[in-house]
Amino acid sequence: MDLILEATVDQPRRAVVLLSGGLDSATVLAIANAEGYETYALSFSYGQRHTVELAAAHRVARQLGAARHIVFDLGMRAIGGSALTDDIDVPHHDSVDQLDSSSAPITYVPARNLIFLSVAAGWAETVGATDIFIGANALDYSGYPDCRRPFLDKFEEAATLGTVAGADGGMKFRVYAPLVDLTKAQTIQRGLELGVDYSITHSCYDPGPSGQACATCDSCLLRKRGFEDLGLTDPVLSESVNT
Amino acid sequence: MDLILEATVDQPRRAVVLLSGGLDSATVLAIANAEGYETYALSFSYGQRHTVELAAAHRVARQLGAARHIVFDLGMRAIGGSALTDDIDVPHHDSVDQLDSSSAPITYVPARNLIFLSVAAGWAETVGATDIFIGANALDYSGYPDCRRPFLDKFEEAATLGTVAGADGGMKFRVYAPLVDLTKAQTIQRGLELGVDYSITHSCYDPGPSGQACATCDSCLLRKRGFEDLGLTDPVLSESVNT
Repeated sequence: MDLILEATVDQPRRAVVLLSGGLDSATVLAIANAEGYETYALSFSYGQRHTVELAAAHRVARQLGAARHIVFDLGMRAIGGSALTDDIDVPHHDSVDQLDSSSAPITYVPARNLIFLSVAAGWAETVGATDIFIGANALDYSGYPDCRRPFLDKFEEAATLGTVAGADGGMKFRVYAPLVDLTKAQTIQRGLELGVDYSITHSCYDPGPSGQACATCDSCLLRKRGFEDLGLTDPVLSESVNT
Repeated sequence: MDLILEATVDQPRRAVVLLSGGLDSATVLAIANAEGYETYALSFSYGQRHTVELAAAHRVARQLGAARHIVFDLGMRAIGGSALTDDIDVPHHDSVDQLDSSSAPITYVPARNLIFLSVAAGWAETVGATDIFIGANALDYSGYPDCRRPFLDKFEEAATLGTVAGADGGMKFRVYAPLVDLTKAQTIQRGLELGVDYSITHSCYDPGPSGQACATCDSCLLRKRGFEDLGLTDPVLSESVNT
């Protein structure tokens, strides 16, 4: 086989971990590390209106000890369709009660996790891995179909059939989504047990000029409520942090 | 549903067509047009060592009348693993008899069609389409698992489950690979019937400084043999064309 693979049999098990720099993916990176993987953190630059989350991803990858961290450029703006990549206003709310999880939010990026996972599968194949970790959660946004387990299961099969490692090498791609059925509070609880420092993460869809969280977008409200459910305050919403 | 879709019920059936600017994808674009689709041609800029193929893609899209043509940036170099994206020499041969299709060639890009199709699914969702055309061929390179029908079938299911249009909208994504079982000669025959001008296509993996085909890489040899099987000469290998 002519494929250039970096792995050898003596190396630890490797996994590619999708890392946005947000609360969920930071937790997932900590979980993959705790499970003994050598972690390959993968972030995307995809025409977000704010790149402050990539800075957070760098901080998280470094602090949690990822073996490598790369940023993959994706020209998502070319295909449009979302408030996160287009010039569409991100919705803000007065309280978490106004969140509507019954349909795809305006922040839905078409086929985003399909694209992200596909790139992860490509990188995984290059570094000799077939395990991919993703912070998908089916509860926060039930309107995101690509955050549900049936999709992730089917993706595993597609990646297995669509790569040399899988189709010819007999390896099976696996997509681990350890947060898929957790509430935000449960995710935070798990991350705190693993020592995740949430003050360096960034989840806000619409940060201020110096990168501070807005506290009123869906993403901010979800994590705010998660901390509150544990009797805690989200560290990125306290005034002294998040610069 | 908050998704921003461009399509309305009065519009013709739309399809996204993967268009590299090579012989196969030009033929597929002509086929999709002939089947009555309004075609959305999608090319990728992914760190190829030569961008001459994107110029060919523009020519082909224009000449065959695609409704739109976009180039999507993919930072494939970041994940490495192929002579097409890394600084690895493309193999050259004295004749077509030296082609080896028993394993993945060094020009294999990890998970390429998985990534390409995922982006196609995202764009399709944005323009209100669920049909995707790809020039995959299982004969030319039996070492490319992502050119085989079992992978394409599984991808259809993954895309359906991973998008709002599919999972919630009841649409079914379809991947059409009309060349999948054709010989190169059969592909060319079909394209000529549809009026494809192969002189404006570009398939070479290792073009010269002014973009001319090398005539000795795997890709050049495959199409050269295809034309010869029909008693023709590949127009890009005649000295007066391909600038």
